[in-house]
Amino acid sequence: MTYCLGIMTHQGLVLASDSRTNAGMDQVNTCRKMHPFVTEGERMLVVMTSGSLSVSQSVVTLLRRDFDEGKGLAAAGSFYDAARVVGEQVRRLAALDREALERDKIPFNINILLGGQIAGEPPGLYMIYPQGNPISATEESPYLQIGESKYGRPILDRGVRFRLTTLDEAVKFALISLDSTMRSNVTVGPPIDLMVYRAGELRVGHYRRFTAKDPDLHRIQTQWEHSLRRAVLDLPEVAFDDHGESGL
Amino acid sequence: MTYCLGIMTHQGLVLASDSRTNAGMDQVNTCRKMHPFVTEGERMLVVMTSGSLSVSQSVVTLLRRDFDEGKGLAAAGSFYDAARVVGEQVRRLAALDREALERDKIPFNINILLGGQIAGEPPGLYMIYPQGNPISATEESPYLQIGESKYGRPILDRGVRFRLTTLDEAVKFALISLDSTMRSNVTVGPPIDLMVYRAGELRVGHYRRFTAKDPDLHRIQTQWEHSLRRAVLDLPEVAFDDHGESGL
Repeated sequence: MTYCLGIMTHQGLVLASDSRTNAGMDQVNTCRKMHPFVTEGERMLVVMTSGSLSVSQSVVTLLRRDFDEGKGLAAAGSFYDAARVVGEQVRRLAALDREALERDKIPFNINILLGGQIAGEPPGLYMIYPQGNPISATEESPYLQIGESKYGRPILDRGVRFRLTTLDEAVKFALISLDSTMRSNVTVGPPIDLMVYRAGELRVGHYRRFTAKDPDLHRIQTQWEHSLRRAVLDLPEVAFDDHGESGL
Repeated sequence: MTYCLGIMTHQGLVLASDSRTNAGMDQVNTCRKMHPFVTEGERMLVVMTSGSLSVSQSVVTLLRRDFDEGKGLAAAGSFYDAARVVGEQVRRLAALDREALERDKIPFNINILLGGQIAGEPPGLYMIYPQGNPISATEESPYLQIGESKYGRPILDRGVRFRLTTLDEAVKFALISLDSTMRSNVTVGPPIDLMVYRAGELRVGHYRRFTAKDPDLHRIQTQWEHSLRRAVLDLPEVAFDDHGESGL
């Protein structure tokens, strides 16, 4: 499993991904899922992937090959075009592998987040489906997730607002969302890759990799758990009816 | 969809269920999913169901008919036997309906939580699978969920401990778990049914139904959202490496 998250606010983007891959419970590995494609001053694009590792790797390898030749993500004229470039690559790979996979009941499974900015436009954040079609984050829905998305969603629904949330705050929401998911699903795991991209920078953002033993991550986990328990206990007491099946 | 939750602590049980049923997004109804079977002073059993409404209703109807005749849940000698009674009822219904459903690609889908107590034993909490087999909550895993379980799980993983959590605290964890799920998935909805059962009472527990407009629920939601945001913002600031792809 995988969990990748992109948050878009008025200040820019926060992108985060876990690093666990597994083919069954007995074959667990670590693999970076955050891939930057950067031409400084002109474009900063980050691809994050979930789904079959073979499919994900192939898509990223082929995107990279085109990029290095000045094609594909290097040539897209707009962020929407860049999302379409990724979708086309997914479709080419489907044409290559899908039939062979499905013959053995293996689904063709890949979801992609594309975040970043191309000069002349505001930052963008898209998800690309396994069918190759894109959807965009919006001011009303300012975050997108792929992979194991449910555990880490309530905290985002409660806290992230496009116009109000700062990048510093979005970093904390992203870390808590990732950490909640790792806590509840062992197939999502560290290290966590985290990038903060401020609108207009047009180069790779501030980046940090948090290992399982990262002291800052540990401090955040401990304080968060303490605060959560405190917050629950501080809630008003709930009054109950007397015994009796009247209400039931 | 559905979300039902049982929490077992050293003091007793907290049981909670939402009330939304839907057959597709355009047919949404309200339906109580918490069903008590009580013989005061001898046994207090609560059945909560998720899955196909037709299957759930039939299982509860047949369990009730047996109970009223002094059989089934009324006669089970232990809590484990009661869980087996429920499982047998599920299997009888599978024998009745499964083939006809699957012929039209409709899955035979029901999961059940059984919580309560039979005189002479401590309180019990079981889940019964669609195949009829039971599993029990334990001191290490003191809660069980059925239905849309992921959104509401992180708060339970952080907070609920069999030996430490009081029933008053477990009520708050249950309400927050239900509320987080309703917030993130529209197919889980109010009213929330909530029962607190203190070990040894052997009659229906303290019960309350929270509608969407319940002022206490609203106060809890508002304070919770405020506390969560406060807790995130109070987390230590995260330092980042300088720009540069070195780490990526």
